[in-house]
Amino acid sequence: MIELATSSWTDVQEHVAAGGTLAILPFGALEQHGPHLPLSTDTLQADGLARRLAARFDAILMPPVPYGQTWDNAGFPGTVSLSAATTTAVCLDLVRAVTGFGITTTVIVNGDYGNRLPLHSAAQQLATESVDVIVLDYPGLIEAGDEVKETPWAAPGLCHADEIETSLVMALAPGTVRSDRMAASYPELPADFGMRPLRFDTLSPSGVFGDPRPATADKGQRLLMLLEQHSAAAVQRHLDALGGAVHPSASAPDLS
Amino acid sequence: MIELATSSWTDVQEHVAAGGTLAILPFGALEQHGPHLPLSTDTLQADGLARRLAARFDAILMPPVPYGQTWDNAGFPGTVSLSAATTTAVCLDLVRAVTGFGITTTVIVNGDYGNRLPLHSAAQQLATESVDVIVLDYPGLIEAGDEVKETPWAAPGLCHADEIETSLVMALAPGTVRSDRMAASYPELPADFGMRPLRFDTLSPSGVFGDPRPATADKGQRLLMLLEQHSAAAVQRHLDALGGAVHPSASAPDLS
Amino acid sequence: MIELATSSWTDVQEHVAAGGTLAILPFGALEQHGPHLPLSTDTLQADGLARRLAARFDAILMPPVPYGQTWDNAGFPGTVSLSAATTTAVCLDLVRAVTGFGITTTVIVNGDYGNRLPLHSAAQQLATESVDVIVLDYPGLIEAGDEVKETPWAAPGLCHADEIETSLVMALAPGTVRSDRMAASYPELPADFGMRPLRFDTLSPSGVFGDPRPATADKGQRLLMLLEQHSAAAVQRHLDALGGAVHPSASAPDLS
Amino acid sequence: MIELATSSWTDVQEHVAAGGTLAILPFGALEQHGPHLPLSTDTLQADGLARRLAARFDAILMPPVPYGQTWDNAGFPGTVSLSAATTTAVCLDLVRAVTGFGITTTVIVNGDYGNRLPLHSAAQQLATESVDVIVLDYPGLIEAGDEVKETPWAAPGLCHADEIETSLVMALAPGTVRSDRMAASYPELPADFGMRPLRFDTLSPSGVFGDPRPATADKGQRLLMLLEQHSAAAVQRHLDALGGAVHPSASAPDLS
Amino acid sequence: MIELATSSWTDVQEHVAAGGTLAILPFGALEQHGPHLPLSTDTLQADGLARRLAARFDAILMPPVPYGQTWDNAGFPGTVSLSAATTTAVCLDLVRAVTGFGITTTVIVNGDYGNRLPLHSAAQQLATESVDVIVLDYPGLIEAGDEVKETPWAAPGLCHADEIETSLVMALAPGTVRSDRMAASYPELPADFGMRPLRFDTLSPSGVFGDPRPATADKGQRLLMLLEQHSAAAVQRHLDALGGAVHPSASAPDLS
Amino acid sequence: MIELATSSWTDVQEHVAAGGTLAILPFGALEQHGPHLPLSTDTLQADGLARRLAARFDAILMPPVPYGQTWDNAGFPGTVSLSAATTTAVCLDLVRAVTGFGITTTVIVNGDYGNRLPLHSAAQQLATESVDVIVLDYPGLIEAGDEVKETPWAAPGLCHADEIETSLVMALAPGTVRSDRMAASYPELPADFGMRPLRFDTLSPSGVFGDPRPATADKGQRLLMLLEQHSAAAVQRHLDALGGAVHPSASAPDLS
Repeated sequence: MIELATSSWTDVQEHVAAGGTLAILPFGALEQHGPHLPLSTDTLQADGLARRLAARFDAILMPPVPYGQTWDNAGFPGTVSLSAATTTAVCLDLVRAVTGFGITTTVIVNGDYGNRLPLHSAAQQLATESVDVIVLDYPGLIEAGDEVKETPWAAPGLCHADEIETSLVMALAPGTVRSDRMAASYPELPADFGMRPLRFDTLSPSGVFGDPRPATADKGQRLLMLLEQHSAAAVQRHLDALGGAVHPSASAPDLS
Repeated sequence: MIELATSSWTDVQEHVAAGGTLAILPFGALEQHGPHLPLSTDTLQADGLARRLAARFDAILMPPVPYGQTWDNAGFPGTVSLSAATTTAVCLDLVRAVTGFGITTTVIVNGDYGNRLPLHSAAQQLATESVDVIVLDYPGLIEAGDEVKETPWAAPGLCHADEIETSLVMALAPGTVRSDRMAASYPELPADFGMRPLRFDTLSPSGVFGDPRPATADKGQRLLMLLEQHSAAAVQRHLDALGGAVHPSASAPDLS
Repeated sequence: MIELATSSWTDVQEHVAAGGTLAILPFGALEQHGPHLPLSTDTLQADGLARRLAARFDAILMPPVPYGQTWDNAGFPGTVSLSAATTTAVCLDLVRAVTGFGITTTVIVNGDYGNRLPLHSAAQQLATESVDVIVLDYPGLIEAGDEVKETPWAAPGLCHADEIETSLVMALAPGTVRSDRMAASYPELPADFGMRPLRFDTLSPSGVFGDPRPATADKGQRLLMLLEQHSAAAVQRHLDALGGAVHPSASAPDLS
Repeated sequence: MIELATSSWTDVQEHVAAGGTLAILPFGALEQHGPHLPLSTDTLQADGLARRLAARFDAILMPPVPYGQTWDNAGFPGTVSLSAATTTAVCLDLVRAVTGFGITTTVIVNGDYGNRLPLHSAAQQLATESVDVIVLDYPGLIEAGDEVKETPWAAPGLCHADEIETSLVMALAPGTVRSDRMAASYPELPADFGMRPLRFDTLSPSGVFGDPRPATADKGQRLLMLLEQHSAAAVQRHLDALGGAVHPSASAPDLS
Repeated sequence: MIELATSSWTDVQEHVAAGGTLAILPFGALEQHGPHLPLSTDTLQADGLARRLAARFDAILMPPVPYGQTWDNAGFPGTVSLSAATTTAVCLDLVRAVTGFGITTTVIVNGDYGNRLPLHSAAQQLATESVDVIVLDYPGLIEAGDEVKETPWAAPGLCHADEIETSLVMALAPGTVRSDRMAASYPELPADFGMRPLRFDTLSPSGVFGDPRPATADKGQRLLMLLEQHSAAAVQRHLDALGGAVHPSASAPDLS
Repeated sequence: MIELATSSWTDVQEHVAAGGTLAILPFGALEQHGPHLPLSTDTLQADGLARRLAARFDAILMPPVPYGQTWDNAGFPGTVSLSAATTTAVCLDLVRAVTGFGITTTVIVNGDYGNRLPLHSAAQQLATESVDVIVLDYPGLIEAGDEVKETPWAAPGLCHADEIETSLVMALAPGTVRSDRMAASYPELPADFGMRPLRFDTLSPSGVFGDPRPATADKGQRLLMLLEQHSAAAVQRHLDALGGAVHPSASAPDLS
């Protein structure tokens, strides 16, 4: 594994010359996550997972994009959203750029629900250019959440500043969690929740959807491990389908 | 001062309610800086300077944008460039977004030469929308460099992976500097250098323009202080011209 | 219910004056569906379902858009695809236009998998304009398929020119089905199927994914009824969430 | 002749393999045509004419585009207009797509005045890509109208919901004409009519420009035949200029 | 009349304060006009006509745009074409700008066939913004040509570097005409001439379409007078239709 | 030297066949320059300088673009500004077009401060297309001004309708200068002048920044000569860097 932010260009040249063809791009957001979690929660999570995948596949880890499309949370001060078009453009530029120096597959670890459409649109465009990219939207999140969390979901698959996300940040950046401000919030959701874009500030005054209180760093570590397993399996399936040229590094931790 | 990445939305709300109207946005790049400096050099420097300015003006510090327009270095593996149009779009979206929750002035600390045109284009567009933004391109850099560095410039005002940048990274992220790989490089520049876009890989095989060897962390600290003084003075002039509503916080270090 | 294609502008004026605020827009595609089904299969199905919903909700039925984004099938002669950007633009223009004469909610009945990203992108954009639109991607299709079909799915949720689609076209436009050309095809799918855009011609030479042979018009009718029930329930949930101003017409068929 | 909507991809493959290189694309609109004609009048007419041309030249008939640029009629409820830019984009995508499977000439049968600029703009763009396309705006309409109609024109060459259009729809879709609502309307036109875009609702409250009352289906058939002759002659001239590779099918009706 | 190029801003302020609301914008091109005419022929003609109209209506004369869309002549060295999109953008910007200081009607005198689509597209867009603009494409040219010229047209309405254009340039910029290089050229035109964009260099090696030899400056003056009459009548009809607020200046030459 | 506006295409063909590969494009603006100077001041100056450079380098002189980006002066009637995007688009189209007939280097003589960003953006884009272009923003202006003018600068490097510009227009188009309206104006500039876009009408009611009164045509000639020397040296440096294929014509005036 090689981390672009801290490496020199000669390090990258060497890595590619040695056969490295896989890049991992964490795509985050800067959006509200309740009074107790930092605005960079999505970026921290995407970067945390991407880092584990990069280690496992001996891949190039790109710096996380710290802003994303997060219109749904724009009603909260501190949320700073890119437009959907800009999000797509950033993704296109970055993937095309790494393709330029020898990367043949880019795995995007998406940390923000609002990025889904713009990132998959970019992937669709890149497919027409024969550039290989897959977008991971936390595969296995529901199973992992069901396994680890003790509190109910605010809605099936919806976790925002809840026990899951709070546990993850406790594991990844404990200093940014304000435990004294945690409070549960189970907003009544409209009957058509999930069928259309909604402003979260009209649903939950605190920005919380769930109950963060039982969160722990241990749960966060366990969630990260499960998410890594699901994501790594998806990446492996993809690489296998392409012809299997890339394999997990021997030094990757055993998941069994 | 408040850092968006580690703050919650309620922290931001409070800061703005207390009169905070100034945001600082460091805009970096991911580009080659020789074999001895990390690809994130420009981002580290922009963030380092922005952080000092945010402290001094009790402003909101935004997460640094870790990618920029860096076509001139695209010939080196590891450089990952946004297009000029995307760079402008990112800047427009971010400034408009903070304007949405009460920021009235945004100071962009630009860390990359290639970002100049796209960021100033964004500023020009924002002016037509009556949104107040200024872009700082390291004001006072030449004076500061002349004062601190011992080795000659590769060209007037040109420093890339040289004594200045190496000293700055030594001060900001010492673990990323590979002193064993330092070597001077004073490429012969074409007669029209600075008059047109040039690919750096055609000029300097190592990507270095200058002599990094006498760099020290102390020099880096001194440079940062000087750059901060020049930048703070520019920001203050701007705020004064607007009507002087924002003042340095009492707790800012004395520069005299 | 009122059908735009066959109505005059005065008919529309009357309908809106009488309180009509709901429009249904079927969005189809022109893409290969094996040797036995017509290229307009997706349009026929979207229009068939939209027509039933319009009747049930006494809504305005818009002419179906007969072209969509169908890059995945572009390798087959006869497939005629819009780009994703154009698909989004068409959707934006049409919804904005009906909003202009009094429609407050538009339900898009999407008949083509490739339209999903562009149509949901349009919906996201429209949300930022406070224009109310929902996109239905055959909710309940898997349940309905499981209930009606006798042959296995080519993959979970994947039906293309198979028993389901063939039954639907038999019910909607029987003259266009060439029963003598039906043949089953269960292509081996790559391990990462569904994770990235794929060209269907590289997977199935005939363009069929499943077994069309047991299809019947009766099954098609049954499928339509089930799809209508699921879709109507989704629309009703949406209308309820908005405040319940629109109700099914008294003459709608009983679903119980 | 082969109709895309009802054909399978294998039918198209066969047609192209047998030398078919000509496609006909009817481009319609959804716009007001008085109280007695359907909103799809332009689409019906373009499709009707395109169908005859496809038969005559043994060409591929594409599904009609049911929406067009019709800003001038946007003041009437039921009119649903695409923007000029979207109209151009749709045309570009469709022509490029059929070019992709072997079509070398596309004839666009334009049914809507407002589509002229956007479609000819598309043709101009396609010319720079060496893609062959011609746009027919009802060549011979004035001569045909002069020959058949009994009532005066609302203005030279202007027919909208008048005797001509009503006769055509009577011939093409008789069930959609509401004879009981017919009324003549000869609005006073501004001195600069035709020199600038005008909103029709400011000129004619009913949306009629002419006198529909003497319309008959027979006149419609006669008009269609005349329009077909003029259009076929234009297409033939174009094909001759290209080298004459395509000829009318032997089974085409004799025009003499 | 006031000419923007040579006036100061205070002159314009005065003119508008005195009731001036009409601007005339000549839109030219830089394209080949045979070996004997200058590349700026279209600009000279548009400016010449615009100047006369400005005098007649006491209007503001804008500097001529010296480049236009002229793809058809791009095969000749010296032709410098704007794209259609840029041509439209220039027109939109200029008309919006003069609207900003009080102009209520802009008359565009178009000197280049290739500008028609882009300029009328701009006018259509401006109509949706309620900005009043008309585009004049030499109304009355055929009548004027029939009256003055002695040589036949290369095709009905087609004059390019022929007797008409040569006479006009002789009247407007005699020093730029090279009489020693004049030669007639009546290229055989394809059967579909006028139905699609064509590259002129494939039709006429010299770039001439007609016979320039009998051209005289007197004929040019006569043509200009006739074109002015037709154009002035069109402008007057337009102004009358708007409500007649603008009238010819008393000092305009008598055309009768 | 050859001037495109007055030459025929065959003249251009000959010039290029004889080895001409250099084009000079003056890019002006239409913006206020006080009550005493014409709105076309920037265009006159850019054209004047470009003409001298074309003579000196035996280059192709293109017609000046008479409109530019001049948002800062949009508050004065008569200023007619292109948007930044349009300015960039015009530049891209023109340079690409001359590249199409054999020009290998284009020198843009920029006459308007507001054009800088859009023109340099175009140059950056053209560099990615390997098209060679340089933009000259009056190199040596400050030195030349210091040498010639008697009155102080309104700000370092700022001259607008002052002694310098007035002298230049006196030399280039004396008939357009209204000496009776000259008045000095030294507006108080905000502390951050030059750091952000500013509307000039908020600073100087007359639009003058400096003192035009001591201006003379002789000073204008002297300034032109100095600007030509500085610009020619810059062009020569650029040509030398490219390989020195182009040399000053023998007939160029001696600068020593």
